Amino acid sequence: MEKIVGSIEAGGTKFVCAVGNQALEIIERVSFPTTTPEETMLSVIDFFAPYKNRLASIGVGSFGPIDINEDSETYGFITTTPKLAWQYFDFVGTLKKAFDVPIAWTTDVNAACYGEYSSGSGIGVENVVYYTIGTGVGGGAIQNGRLIGGFSHPEMGHMVVKPHPKDTFKGVCPFHGNCLEGLAAGPAIEQRMGMEGKQLPETDAFWAIEADYIAQCAYNTTLMFSPDVIIFGGGVMKQPHLLEKIHQAFEKLTNGYVTHPPLTEYIVTPKLGDNAATIGCLALAKEAIL
Amino acid sequence: MEKIVGSIEAGGTKFVCAVGNQALEIIERVSFPTTTPEETMLSVIDFFAPYKNRLASIGVGSFGPIDINEDSETYGFITTTPKLAWQYFDFVGTLKKAFDVPIAWTTDVNAACYGEYSSGSGIGVENVVYYTIGTGVGGGAIQNGRLIGGFSHPEMGHMVVKPHPKDTFKGVCPFHGNCLEGLAAGPAIEQRMGMEGKQLPETDAFWAIEADYIAQCAYNTTLMFSPDVIIFGGGVMKQPHLLEKIHQAFEKLTNGYVTHPPLTEYIVTPKLGDNAATIGCLALAKEAIL
Repeated sequence: MEKIVGSIEAGGTKFVCAVGNQALEIIERVSFPTTTPEETMLSVIDFFAPYKNRLASIGVGSFGPIDINEDSETYGFITTTPKLAWQYFDFVGTLKKAFDVPIAWTTDVNAACYGEYSSGSGIGVENVVYYTIGTGVGGGAIQNGRLIGGFSHPEMGHMVVKPHPKDTFKGVCPFHGNCLEGLAAGPAIEQRMGMEGKQLPETDAFWAIEADYIAQCAYNTTLMFSPDVIIFGGGVMKQPHLLEKIHQAFEKLTNGYVTHPPLTEYIVTPKLGDNAATIGCLALAKEAIL
Repeated sequence: MEKIVGSIEAGGTKFVCAVGNQALEIIERVSFPTTTPEETMLSVIDFFAPYKNRLASIGVGSFGPIDINEDSETYGFITTTPKLAWQYFDFVGTLKKAFDVPIAWTTDVNAACYGEYSSGSGIGVENVVYYTIGTGVGGGAIQNGRLIGGFSHPEMGHMVVKPHPKDTFKGVCPFHGNCLEGLAAGPAIEQRMGMEGKQLPETDAFWAIEADYIAQCAYNTTLMFSPDVIIFGGGVMKQPHLLEKIHQAFEKLTNGYVTHPPLTEYIVTPKLGDNAATIGCLALAKEAIL
């Protein structure tokens, strides 16, 4: 009987659980809302229960912040999340009690990064940075085939950006006001424009401002990591016109200073779309038993 | 006869050549000004010639930008430097003709980062970021014990910073105006204040501005890499009062969002001082023959 691997994409609003084969093909998938840890984890355990005998490992990509320091007493916990019911919830420990298999544990955006690296826009290269621009901004990076992180996982979404001269919006980040997330995530667009990004016409002058912030992010990312590819996913990136505007703003900003691959190959959207994190968790689960 | 390793710190104004033993202790060192490639490389070759039979490998940390992509036709070259005589100079090739030994090739700041990692403020950890703030701003990063870089070496010195509300200076970076280097390197201080940083009294209000820019750099670095330690070296950092001001500005900026080691262990100055790059080159040379 072929062994299978499990995936848990633990998002702040919904969980996606899946099992896949060794080729990382999804065999079954379910999705349910994120409520309390007790209730939600019961649904998780119910989903995997029928596969228990064949399940070799599970990969988890969780909303955060989470503790990924293996030497820490709270390794495997969700830590200081604003979702109070989940604060200091022992995710890996709870899972281990139900399924005694290796568990790979990382952030949801790291998982998406790993998915694109394994099977999406990062195939064939070793240095990939992935951002999601949605209700928040998150980032993950792979260097030489490994997810990076020192004392914790990255929190790139809160990087410093220079306010656009035509943008008078003060930003919505409760910690930093006008950091990247505070200026460019979905809620910032909605509060600034009085409507969601998807309702804003392509011709609205605001998009040049949004593209400028995302280009600043790509520019800093280039300087820091010089990756082979930068992938921007998440709800905001579903505007098909946005990528080209980002390319233009990026060129203006770098001003010829750095060499990089051709922009259409360098700053891209995810090939796996909304499946990136699920595929990434399967890939990480598979890695965990190699 | 014990084998020895060589080090070339190729700076824009001076070269430092050294040979060291397997314990990375310096046996002999010389320094001479950077003139033309022909003349300067002759001095380099003259220095190592007496050691030729014992020399196992050489580590080079060079001013840049340089080509570190091993698949590239110009691997081992200094590329688009403003020092015209050195543009597209084949550094590694020239060295290989004189000494047929393995040559480790990286940037001067990567070498300094590696030196501090091997023998300085980064001993015992695996994730180190090093910045030099002097005539320019440069950065290097080690993750899981390896220097990072994808299609090229990092160029972190040119990252976006938010202009300080009390700073009306426009910046001096020829590419980006008011990027980090354009606002915070030595020449920016001199042009803004009409004197060098070392002549400015500790009580000058400018230092809070300088500390803010460096703190923004430390903050972005924390979000991107969550390293175990961030090391700031270079001429500007020789002001002993500056580090504490950076700590204060960093705390204000992060606003409790990220966890990090205690600041006095997390944001530090180099233990090796001006020897960081030389020791780093010796360490990289040693790595090259392992």
